[in-house]
Amino acid sequence: MKEDQVNVTEGTGRLGRRKFLNTAALAGLSIGTVACAEKDEGKAAAPAAAPAAAPAAAPHGASGAHLKPGELDTYYGLWSGGHTGDMRVLGLPSGRELLRIPCFVPDALVGWGITNESKAVMGTKPDGHLRYTVGDTHHTHASYKDGNYDGRYAWINDKINSRIARIRLDYFVCDKITQLPNVQGFHGIFPDKRDPVDPAINYTTRVFCGGEFSIPLPNTGIEDETKYRSLFSCVDAETMEVRWQVLIDGNCDLVATSFDGKLAATNQYNTEMGAKYEDMMSAERDACLFFNIARIEEAVKAGKFKTIGSSKVPVVDGTREANKDAKTALTAYVSVPKNPHGVNASPDQKYFICAGKLSPTATVIELAKVLDWFDGKHENVDDAIVAEVELGLGPLHTAFDGRGNAYTTLFLDSQVVKWNVDKAIAFHKGDKTANYVVDRLDVHYQPGHINASQSETIAADGKYLAVGCKFSKDRFLPVGPLHAENEQLIDISGEKMVLMADHPVRGEPHDFIIFKRDLVKPKQVYDLDHHPLAIKDSKESGVFRNGKKVTVKMTSLAPAFSLREFKVKKGDEVTLILTNLDKIEDLTHGFAIPNYNVNFIVNPQETASVTFVADQPGVFWCYCTHFCHALHLEMRTRMIVEA
Amino acid sequence: MKEDQVNVTEGTGRLGRRKFLNTAALAGLSIGTVACAEKDEGKAAAPAAAPAAAPAAAPHGASGAHLKPGELDTYYGLWSGGHTGDMRVLGLPSGRELLRIPCFVPDALVGWGITNESKAVMGTKPDGHLRYTVGDTHHTHASYKDGNYDGRYAWINDKINSRIARIRLDYFVCDKITQLPNVQGFHGIFPDKRDPVDPAINYTTRVFCGGEFSIPLPNTGIEDETKYRSLFSCVDAETMEVRWQVLIDGNCDLVATSFDGKLAATNQYNTEMGAKYEDMMSAERDACLFFNIARIEEAVKAGKFKTIGSSKVPVVDGTREANKDAKTALTAYVSVPKNPHGVNASPDQKYFICAGKLSPTATVIELAKVLDWFDGKHENVDDAIVAEVELGLGPLHTAFDGRGNAYTTLFLDSQVVKWNVDKAIAFHKGDKTANYVVDRLDVHYQPGHINASQSETIAADGKYLAVGCKFSKDRFLPVGPLHAENEQLIDISGEKMVLMADHPVRGEPHDFIIFKRDLVKPKQVYDLDHHPLAIKDSKESGVFRNGKKVTVKMTSLAPAFSLREFKVKKGDEVTLILTNLDKIEDLTHGFAIPNYNVNFIVNPQETASVTFVADQPGVFWCYCTHFCHALHLEMRTRMIVEA
Repeated sequence: MKEDQVNVTEGTGRLGRRKFLNTAALAGLSIGTVACAEKDEGKAAAPAAAPAAAPAAAPHGASGAHLKPGELDTYYGLWSGGHTGDMRVLGLPSGRELLRIPCFVPDALVGWGITNESKAVMGTKPDGHLRYTVGDTHHTHASYKDGNYDGRYAWINDKINSRIARIRLDYFVCDKITQLPNVQGFHGIFPDKRDPVDPAINYTTRVFCGGEFSIPLPNTGIEDETKYRSLFSCVDAETMEVRWQVLIDGNCDLVATSFDGKLAATNQYNTEMGAKYEDMMSAERDACLFFNIARIEEAVKAGKFKTIGSSKVPVVDGTREANKDAKTALTAYVSVPKNPHGVNASPDQKYFICAGKLSPTATVIELAKVLDWFDGKHENVDDAIVAEVELGLGPLHTAFDGRGNAYTTLFLDSQVVKWNVDKAIAFHKGDKTANYVVDRLDVHYQPGHINASQSETIAADGKYLAVGCKFSKDRFLPVGPLHAENEQLIDISGEKMVLMADHPVRGEPHDFIIFKRDLVKPKQVYDLDHHPLAIKDSKESGVFRNGKKVTVKMTSLAPAFSLREFKVKKGDEVTLILTNLDKIEDLTHGFAIPNYNVNFIVNPQETASVTFVADQPGVFWCYCTHFCHALHLEMRTRMIVEA
Repeated sequence: MKEDQVNVTEGTGRLGRRKFLNTAALAGLSIGTVACAEKDEGKAAAPAAAPAAAPAAAPHGASGAHLKPGELDTYYGLWSGGHTGDMRVLGLPSGRELLRIPCFVPDALVGWGITNESKAVMGTKPDGHLRYTVGDTHHTHASYKDGNYDGRYAWINDKINSRIARIRLDYFVCDKITQLPNVQGFHGIFPDKRDPVDPAINYTTRVFCGGEFSIPLPNTGIEDETKYRSLFSCVDAETMEVRWQVLIDGNCDLVATSFDGKLAATNQYNTEMGAKYEDMMSAERDACLFFNIARIEEAVKAGKFKTIGSSKVPVVDGTREANKDAKTALTAYVSVPKNPHGVNASPDQKYFICAGKLSPTATVIELAKVLDWFDGKHENVDDAIVAEVELGLGPLHTAFDGRGNAYTTLFLDSQVVKWNVDKAIAFHKGDKTANYVVDRLDVHYQPGHINASQSETIAADGKYLAVGCKFSKDRFLPVGPLHAENEQLIDISGEKMVLMADHPVRGEPHDFIIFKRDLVKPKQVYDLDHHPLAIKDSKESGVFRNGKKVTVKMTSLAPAFSLREFKVKKGDEVTLILTNLDKIEDLTHGFAIPNYNVNFIVNPQETASVTFVADQPGVFWCYCTHFCHALHLEMRTRMIVEA
């Protein structure tokens, strides 16, 4: 157990640090990457910054994350929960977790997966059990208007079961979940930022979803892996129905969208379409695949699609073979080096940047030139590449400060590298004096996603940078085999990056966004009219029988439920409807029935219901589980199940 | 939305502050409490400290919670998760959540409730589904040796389904869960600190569990509430079997144990045995009920017990009627004022302190005098009361600093009051100059549990005090109707308490303990021998068929699973066993099967298994869900289900 303060600089040289890192995350890393490493070590890396900067613990930076008691954060962060299956709301710079929003996975506090309302969102099997109780969220992004977040919605993916969930940002709740047909391994997700055609639609109306795994289409047991394919999907932001899909070559990893609404893109790490990892990394170059949204929707409108299996969703052909003619192409495959990971849109609206993963490079693609290719103005779509520059080992994701700088995580080097995009373009053009690397900062350890405050909006403000470190190793007290991950916060307001704080998080946040607190207007009390079954007056309470079906109507008003007891008969199918008549913010009640596997909460003015069979006779004290009042412990009602 | 920094002093007078508080938590508070309030407001409260102290934001206190990047916490905190159903491990003073330990409720990250191993701990129905998926943890305490924590175990209750879970503090995992028979509303929990008879047993061997709700015994539908009773239970710390139970009058709320092992106690807020909250608060005094452990175990040994329903657990008679003779009594009912909440053992080993809740008082009970009563040395057990002093409105729980001071939460006043126990006793004896109230600090808001570092051990060190505030109101950015709760941290090293930090937490932590980090020795890698089915060599991998039952054996070693694909047939019952052969700390893998509702992790050298029916034909990419390696995305295997 390492108990002393860890000196983050440690005076270790670069090789020493790499050796330390390699003991954990890189065992058995195969030939491709090792080759990169040797290449990088063997020759002087392209214009380097000062040697790996010691993470200067400048007072203003390091203390900036520390709020005084009662002081509020200035930014919200929406964090994906990984295989914990939720979305998390953090306050920044403090890093405090303010809320977990259940989406794909049940939540015993809220009663998510217990109440009829949440089961309807999550989806059930014919026997009434939840269809799924696991999830794997990776990426979360919010709705846009005029290039900035508008505080309406956020979306989040479930990779395991190819589901997309929508979060309402007024109530911070999940209100819809859609399963994508014929998709396995749904990974990247990004809303559009405006309509590609209609200038009046200056806000998000579509969400794009990348399918990572290639499978038989339809997936009915075929085993010939040369016929496996992946789909790129478009979901309607309002109805949450799948509008269309695109059949592609290769796979989809992350997704990005242009500010003008015209392009979406996904980086492809497996253009080889290999089924084993050695095959997936056999090619020297993979791709960033662009989608011409307007053309795809024209093709759908013109009936140029097929459907797959029992799905009714139109599927257009986006394969290379079918899209050779630029002037009619729906898709464009821009070449990028080996197994790229991450594609991000710069806030100046000009570029998409693909990070290399197994190549030590970032590739800068100019969007105007991709559009030029679609317009037939140049022949080779790779001419849209305006820079391909070395950054360090294992580049994964990139964030922006709105001042022309990009920040890329280097997984293998456990660093963040700050680099200037214009200088990188100049260097790529031939100006070898262009020192595009501005700064490097060691992080702890093996960083994946990175994002800056307002990064992929036109309001990128270059204040905070968060880095999702996959390994925390010695940064927190040991708690057994399962370590927390480490979301580090960095001050990027100056020339040098300054490490501010380590924030441990439960596995496994991948992506996140950070935005100014005034962009959302949360509501804190429900409206009784939100639920058609709301019991608006406690006098409506009672037990209503219809054969074996019994409806129990009840209200809560601290410190009592409107029914002090209620009787049902063994074997009844009971639907209990509870409306919380308390109107005061934060005055939430819970409702638990012992041995009946029932617990849920009702927020102020909220209504929820549960349905169960009263299969055990006896007396069951239903009690308030959410502290509400000095007489909270005494807030109970009795369910008497007569034998 | 209140966005500015909240000034915690605000210059509001006492009435103003109460009015503010009352708008949220106290609506409809009935006559008993109002009477207390009026009483307290109307006359000068017993010796008061200086007027409600402004929470001085002294630099050392306020900045003490702020660790530099890489700096480690000095204390662990074990927090109950309330109806989130888990146990949480916090680092203090930072307040960072380092781990959530799933116990009563499934966890999609770990695969808790998914793997065969965790299902065996949680308990299943005949159809294989989990018996319960909700829980409501309240109190957590750890095993003792020689009056201090020994780092072996912690226990936590589930109020909804009357279950007790044990956590191993070497691996920080739940390894056993026991459901208490004939108990509803299992609330308080506390391990003993040594054996009452055998001096060689200087460590925890029993855990005591209080039953809060009175029910028919057995609970088979009887409805005559005068026959409802509660049980106090003793669980074996090693086997986790229920050793014995005590039938009592009234109910059990919190539980405390003496350092000498001789006494356990529970405060009783409902000696009236009322079924409605007005009845529960009708009497002016309730009780603190003491259990004479040695005598109870002698009675069990002598066969002086009955059993209830199908349970085989011996139940001795602890009712008032059966225990009038002190010299043979198993129990003693000490009178305390109206609806007490909380009973705590002082680290000087001398006293139990009951907080009043609906009485503005704390009652100090001298343990030696309770033992004297059992020995027939005095007639009235209430003579054990050595102080009953006013503290403020709504006292709930008490912590200690090891320097003779107690810290009690005042729910209605939203304050913590620091008071000197010896001076309170002197005041109660008649010395009206004894100013027992040392300090008061406003907290935010409506505090419930409180605990200090090492508080209920002989090593109480008076450094940190944490307060579980039930309402956070304006202390954090708004996130919709469900507010975080606020675990505030207070520096108690000086004469005045100093508020250090607000820590938001997901509802609803109740109790917690805080101890020095060197008291546990966590292990970070499993032992292959822990699991009888461990696959110790990847060469043992394969698909083994026995009729329709198929066993798939696999290992993981970053970045690959030992099987690159495996085939089963539609309708097979598949048991998949996965051993993680990686040996490096923090190198955990996940294993997800799309559409099959399977996801779980295997920590280094851990083995886990799942069993499912292969009911959907097709190709399913099983992938690693826990980031492990630069080629993590490529770490997959294929399950091919042949139609």
